[in-house]
Amino acid sequence: MTAPKLDGRVERGDQTRRAILDRAAAIASVEGLEGLSIGRLAAELDVSKSGLFAHFGSKEELQLATVRWAGKVFVAEVIAPALRSPAGLRRLWRLCDGWLDYSNRRVFPGGCFFASVMAEFDARPGRVRDAIAEAHRDWQRYLQESISTARELGELTADADPRQLTFELDAFTRATQDALLFDEQGVYTRARRAMLHRLRAVAIDPGLLPRSPR
Amino acid sequence: MTAPKLDGRVERGDQTRRAILDRAAAIASVEGLEGLSIGRLAAELDVSKSGLFAHFGSKEELQLATVRWAGKVFVAEVIAPALRSPAGLRRLWRLCDGWLDYSNRRVFPGGCFFASVMAEFDARPGRVRDAIAEAHRDWQRYLQESISTARELGELTADADPRQLTFELDAFTRATQDALLFDEQGVYTRARRAMLHRLRAVAIDPGLLPRSPR
Repeated sequence: MTAPKLDGRVERGDQTRRAILDRAAAIASVEGLEGLSIGRLAAELDVSKSGLFAHFGSKEELQLATVRWAGKVFVAEVIAPALRSPAGLRRLWRLCDGWLDYSNRRVFPGGCFFASVMAEFDARPGRVRDAIAEAHRDWQRYLQESISTARELGELTADADPRQLTFELDAFTRATQDALLFDEQGVYTRARRAMLHRLRAVAIDPGLLPRSPR
Repeated sequence: MTAPKLDGRVERGDQTRRAILDRAAAIASVEGLEGLSIGRLAAELDVSKSGLFAHFGSKEELQLATVRWAGKVFVAEVIAPALRSPAGLRRLWRLCDGWLDYSNRRVFPGGCFFASVMAEFDARPGRVRDAIAEAHRDWQRYLQESISTARELGELTADADPRQLTFELDAFTRATQDALLFDEQGVYTRARRAMLHRLRAVAIDPGLLPRSPR
């Protein structure tokens, strides 16, 4: 994809594709991936259905491309900022805190894109479910590696179990879905408090963590 | 509704209604409440569309009736069994453990009915969202009251915060959705371990709790 990038038509095509996927991910976070029809998306974006078909070929391909796009957005919004903190407990905290910010800022209007579509597809086997599960697994794997790194750096007690801790921290992020359901912000504070409490219990130096959940 | 109950036709009508709602809740737990069309349900149950309309009148009424029905199932499967344990920490544990069992036994084929439909409707204001939010609030309220009772009975430390603890225990139940997404059972063990660990930390007599997460 290096040479074609110099071609103006291809560049415009890439921009169009990004605009389409941005809108598709926004819709899916509110109404689910099944709500994504090529006809509806064409109407909302004021482009032709045949143009959309040229980009994606089928509804399933559009759904898969949307899941991949949302994964890139998640990496840019949650993972990349955490990399600016030093590896170990501080980065782990930035990751947890960054997830809450990403949900709270409504990067996707329906809250976390993945929280929305996981519940939609978890009991529906197929390529779309596999892509969602893979993206979710990637996040959990990254979280678990960050915990393991903090332990290897001597910043967490030796009995901190990375897999168990991953389950618990991930659970706290996901339960903030209630902020949407109840139109209330308190759950973000409770999630932050729960994460801080859990990490303090296994931190060698709790001073690396914030004092209060804000 | 006492006198009409003696009428055989009304009784048969009630049975039909229950059968319809049972099927509707099963479908919705897998495919969401939007997937519930009267036409599809009529075809699956081999009854006439006009008969279904006579029962529910509209798709929205059918969705609302399905949410209410699922709430009754949840009470029968999770709340009622916990009432057999003595009030306090033991009942609180039965409640947490019972929730995991209910999800794991697939009372609804798509896991917890509410976990499925909450993600579907959280960003879609309206009567259906309100009904789902109310049912979810009822569960959280009951969980919080159970924690408060255990504290009042002197079975939890005075600094145990019922609202915060409710958030955390509820988060652990909901994260078991991964059992569906990844077809794996380990998350139930991790959820049980997380709950036990959290409750042990605030229990005056940890002997009231099981020794291991099974």
